[in-house]
Amino acid sequence: MAANTFGELFRLTTFGESHGKAVGGIIDGCPSGQKIDFEFIRNELIRRSTNKNSFSSQRNEPDTLQLLSGIENNITTGSPIAFIVCNENQCSKDYIDLQHVFRPSHADYTYLKKYGFNLPGGGRASNRESVSRVVGGAIAKQLLAKKNIFVQAFVSRIGTVALESVPENNILKKTEASPLRCPDENVTKKMEQLLTEAQQQGNTLGGIIHCVVKGVPVGLGEPVFDKLQADLAKAMMSINASKGFEYGNGFEAATLFGSENNDIFHAENGIIRTKTNRSGGIQGGISNGEKIYFNVAFKPIPTLMQTQQTVDSEGNNKTIEPKGRYDVCAVPRAVPIVEAMAALVVIDHYLRHFGYIAFRS
Amino acid sequence: MAANTFGELFRLTTFGESHGKAVGGIIDGCPSGQKIDFEFIRNELIRRSTNKNSFSSQRNEPDTLQLLSGIENNITTGSPIAFIVCNENQCSKDYIDLQHVFRPSHADYTYLKKYGFNLPGGGRASNRESVSRVVGGAIAKQLLAKKNIFVQAFVSRIGTVALESVPENNILKKTEASPLRCPDENVTKKMEQLLTEAQQQGNTLGGIIHCVVKGVPVGLGEPVFDKLQADLAKAMMSINASKGFEYGNGFEAATLFGSENNDIFHAENGIIRTKTNRSGGIQGGISNGEKIYFNVAFKPIPTLMQTQQTVDSEGNNKTIEPKGRYDVCAVPRAVPIVEAMAALVVIDHYLRHFGYIAFRS
Amino acid sequence: MAANTFGELFRLTTFGESHGKAVGGIIDGCPSGQKIDFEFIRNELIRRSTNKNSFSSQRNEPDTLQLLSGIENNITTGSPIAFIVCNENQCSKDYIDLQHVFRPSHADYTYLKKYGFNLPGGGRASNRESVSRVVGGAIAKQLLAKKNIFVQAFVSRIGTVALESVPENNILKKTEASPLRCPDENVTKKMEQLLTEAQQQGNTLGGIIHCVVKGVPVGLGEPVFDKLQADLAKAMMSINASKGFEYGNGFEAATLFGSENNDIFHAENGIIRTKTNRSGGIQGGISNGEKIYFNVAFKPIPTLMQTQQTVDSEGNNKTIEPKGRYDVCAVPRAVPIVEAMAALVVIDHYLRHFGYIAFRS
Amino acid sequence: MAANTFGELFRLTTFGESHGKAVGGIIDGCPSGQKIDFEFIRNELIRRSTNKNSFSSQRNEPDTLQLLSGIENNITTGSPIAFIVCNENQCSKDYIDLQHVFRPSHADYTYLKKYGFNLPGGGRASNRESVSRVVGGAIAKQLLAKKNIFVQAFVSRIGTVALESVPENNILKKTEASPLRCPDENVTKKMEQLLTEAQQQGNTLGGIIHCVVKGVPVGLGEPVFDKLQADLAKAMMSINASKGFEYGNGFEAATLFGSENNDIFHAENGIIRTKTNRSGGIQGGISNGEKIYFNVAFKPIPTLMQTQQTVDSEGNNKTIEPKGRYDVCAVPRAVPIVEAMAALVVIDHYLRHFGYIAFRS
Repeated sequence: MAANTFGELFRLTTFGESHGKAVGGIIDGCPSGQKIDFEFIRNELIRRSTNKNSFSSQRNEPDTLQLLSGIENNITTGSPIAFIVCNENQCSKDYIDLQHVFRPSHADYTYLKKYGFNLPGGGRASNRESVSRVVGGAIAKQLLAKKNIFVQAFVSRIGTVALESVPENNILKKTEASPLRCPDENVTKKMEQLLTEAQQQGNTLGGIIHCVVKGVPVGLGEPVFDKLQADLAKAMMSINASKGFEYGNGFEAATLFGSENNDIFHAENGIIRTKTNRSGGIQGGISNGEKIYFNVAFKPIPTLMQTQQTVDSEGNNKTIEPKGRYDVCAVPRAVPIVEAMAALVVIDHYLRHFGYIAFRS
Repeated sequence: MAANTFGELFRLTTFGESHGKAVGGIIDGCPSGQKIDFEFIRNELIRRSTNKNSFSSQRNEPDTLQLLSGIENNITTGSPIAFIVCNENQCSKDYIDLQHVFRPSHADYTYLKKYGFNLPGGGRASNRESVSRVVGGAIAKQLLAKKNIFVQAFVSRIGTVALESVPENNILKKTEASPLRCPDENVTKKMEQLLTEAQQQGNTLGGIIHCVVKGVPVGLGEPVFDKLQADLAKAMMSINASKGFEYGNGFEAATLFGSENNDIFHAENGIIRTKTNRSGGIQGGISNGEKIYFNVAFKPIPTLMQTQQTVDSEGNNKTIEPKGRYDVCAVPRAVPIVEAMAALVVIDHYLRHFGYIAFRS
Repeated sequence: MAANTFGELFRLTTFGESHGKAVGGIIDGCPSGQKIDFEFIRNELIRRSTNKNSFSSQRNEPDTLQLLSGIENNITTGSPIAFIVCNENQCSKDYIDLQHVFRPSHADYTYLKKYGFNLPGGGRASNRESVSRVVGGAIAKQLLAKKNIFVQAFVSRIGTVALESVPENNILKKTEASPLRCPDENVTKKMEQLLTEAQQQGNTLGGIIHCVVKGVPVGLGEPVFDKLQADLAKAMMSINASKGFEYGNGFEAATLFGSENNDIFHAENGIIRTKTNRSGGIQGGISNGEKIYFNVAFKPIPTLMQTQQTVDSEGNNKTIEPKGRYDVCAVPRAVPIVEAMAALVVIDHYLRHFGYIAFRS
Repeated sequence: MAANTFGELFRLTTFGESHGKAVGGIIDGCPSGQKIDFEFIRNELIRRSTNKNSFSSQRNEPDTLQLLSGIENNITTGSPIAFIVCNENQCSKDYIDLQHVFRPSHADYTYLKKYGFNLPGGGRASNRESVSRVVGGAIAKQLLAKKNIFVQAFVSRIGTVALESVPENNILKKTEASPLRCPDENVTKKMEQLLTEAQQQGNTLGGIIHCVVKGVPVGLGEPVFDKLQADLAKAMMSINASKGFEYGNGFEAATLFGSENNDIFHAENGIIRTKTNRSGGIQGGISNGEKIYFNVAFKPIPTLMQTQQTVDSEGNNKTIEPKGRYDVCAVPRAVPIVEAMAALVVIDHYLRHFGYIAFRS
């Protein structure tokens, strides 16, 4: 069921796999009359597909966006926005002989059991699916920017190397200046050392992405099941390889006394604010006007340049020998995906809240 | 919008607040002909409302369940199951004078901004809302039990005191034997010491709940947006006071090498299993037949027996003096709520998957 | 699945049957801060349950509404609005012996096949379910009235006796003055004659209800699948015993030339109007500011005071002998149900449209 | 909102307009492992686009279907099925000068008001949108055929010329043999005479389509809001130019006595059937195993080869002079659209019902 649709009012439906002709999607519910900058979307796709580091395979995916409907003369028309991105190298022979041998910690086994099929390249489990999320997010970001809401993520950990504090300013600039999308030069260097070590072993590493949403007005989120953090959690845990989500001070809150954890209200020039923001900008499921922030943990990519034991669909012991594409770490490339999903959640709740408010006026 | 409904095929819609006449809900989509044990539901309600420890206020809430429709002679009829639980003490005067003074880290401020109201007792943000979740979960659990699926949670951390390893057997018995729902006697004692310390300060503590779902067949979950872990994350992050979610080895996965994190497949008597289960029973968003497990972090309750600074709705400085109910730690009481939400997610995906499969046969 | 929920943003979920303890529902998504007149709701319930004519059984159903949450001091709080109406005579022994004998043109057979059950009184197929629709509609009507939108229906046909033209003014007054809810005194008398004839035979009659919605602003409705007329059609065809729906000139349009059927635009004091309104106030699925009107056809109630042939669940021939309640014609009582469903559709599309519009401003 | 998505479990999302690059859609929820015959889909597209009569404009639309994902080697994979049909003549200059002059009984005015735009060719109100419905329906039909469920529609009325009785056999063959898709040779001739008359006047005609669904098992449909007839009504009223819907004996039921309208049950070789089928195969919202049938009324196309009065967006009087494409009657071409929407409703309820049933076994 609605497994390929995300959102209630601003809805993204996606399709496609890496081995097929194209990936793409339909955005339904985008308000009309909104100016869209395609250069921005293209840039987001480039952010998703390329790394300036030597720890990723070179894909040469141009990711050329074709818009099929919904935007004319760069203005949204109110019609559904359909888009496709063709796959350049449709048939990846590298994967084909793995079809009945289950790669460890991949989705091969569960897909075969659920669908009776095991598509090359992982089918919908392929990271290529995230192209459509990034396009949807790039449109959502542009709408949010008009309301002065901005989403920015960066890598805060790779393996055992972690960023200690979140930079206050110029996050985007610092992040994009780092080949690993970590907004600290020294930490980036330590991460590179660790990644070099992993690469020499044919090994991989995961990490953590920290995401900040600034400018969210008070009132977004629904109080019970569709709490803002609940929808953010779902969005993040729907990204491939994510293993955990926390917002505000997250798991640390479990270790503190109430008196250490509470955010005290005060008034600044007539505006009610909290002195601290351990709540991560959300109280009772609803945004309180402070900065929203959260962490998403990613596991290391399971494809290794090492021989791995496994079984085939008949239960016979098999080994998987290294070949084909190999990424030491996918976390830097997941940064725009985290941002895209956050933007989709926030624009959806924005429309939900302001529609609701509109009646009262 | 559907803010008060959870699920796609097995849908729970809830209503009610602590200060009103009743809480309750409607379960839509429950298969007909299923035997329901009301004693089990009542016991789950007792688990939610009482603690055998001295760190919680005594509520004397009998939580008498009234069934209005959908079950006759203990058998589900296929009609929507409606239930109410009346509130014994509707009007809690303790709360009324707080209506325009924002309690720190509560939902008072955000609710006032969103709805123009600030209901006594926190309105829908009150933990009383969880009564309906527990009833819904208690019915879901009974359906799951018929398919040999069992959900069991326990407290694995309070403040700085943590359980080091998950017990293999008799989790339910050990958990319910502990006044803090921690299935280890020694750890329970250390937790009690810490709670006593907090209580003496008028302070509060949060913690972590660990939840295990056994017996889930291969194939539950949808591969893209409605991954099983994504729906579990949303469910858990919709519980009051939760701050983080991780499944399998969770945030730890971000620190490991791929070779340390992968789960190797092997065959046991013709059945394909993984040797380790860092994946937490889910791969590619779909259950793989292994045990599903996850952690949920809870912040300390923000209501303290200490004077706290705050402001009122006009921005005037105010203090909140301690009075009324006070719980040192709500985490043990959240155990059945975590279980209930997990059961709702699993039964929903069970119906989604097996309906889908049914066509093929 | 969502079989017991209606609406996207203003959502009514209903429960209950005539033989159970209560019927009721939950309204989710009602804007907060709206004044609600309970006397109006009670009056709508009276309209549903009583007739001033002698062609209906006397039910003595007081239909006492109990509000459980969501409205305080007559103001909506933004929380879900839960309500119940207890059934006075829960156990109708009249029906019990019919449980395995299928009443002609009732839902006994299909329910037994679908649910494995055949509840007394028809279960959810009982007209008693409409109590919840009327309560939901009565709240929707009050919100619409604040936006100067009014819904009014009346009986335009019973059996072979039809009203020839729709009255221009005082429809509500004329309708409620008629014991058959037909706003024409002479036609009412002819209908009474026909109903007397039917009653003498132990027979029943159906009819047509005409419904008018005035004051709908331009822009309500979605252009493709959720056209305003499509959602109205679904709403009306979900009412028990309805057999057909048409809006504007409806089926007559199929017989006309385009030149006879088109509505010509002109400007009246700067406002664009159509000279005729064969379109029934909707063009391209979206309201055009003209009066919305439609017809709903109802079949005669299948319960007769005549012996009828049928079979039981084993296929044995049986006869059903007349007894118990008997209504010659239920159409007058369906008038407030048609209005309620229309109001639910219009408020839902109102919220959908104005939320969408809100972003643009 | 979900305005461009239809269905709950088998979901079709569509996009595109006649003046844009392409139309298309995504089908989500199609069971995997189903064989798909593309020749059948192409043939359905041909049925939608061509007529063998002289009353329609010649479009030369090849309607070449491009499949982008979800079907490999003619077998559904369980992934979303994405498809596009490119528009050959994207820019129809004929329409452009009408952008701010409202064509009578078209959607120009309401679209301008709702979206602030008035796209050439009618935007999403263009009949070109139905291409995607026909593709979705053609896949649904193939799945239904495996369960021996067949959908067949035909023209039963054009203007004042009506078919008097429904043929018992070979409906498809007789229908497709008629240039007007009316399965009776003599009636077809009378319709042709009337259409010639209309054509000479530059006028247009509407009509009625009768649709039959054979082989539906007992139990499809939900008892309250999602009654099978309610979802069929919504589906049909979402088709452009439809004005009314009735199932079974429909509006005629409003004129009959209960004794004339009831369907008497009897047993045929142990199978419970009704002797008559005025219920149209649905009782209490649920299919009863008899043939489902219904009528859909269509208005005449509002574009005439006659000068028509209207206004522009400033309220100035304007005339619309005839030019461009012109169809005397679109009803024959709507036959496959009616069938497609019926197939989408039935497959969706099939999946809903059998998923529900699957749990019980």
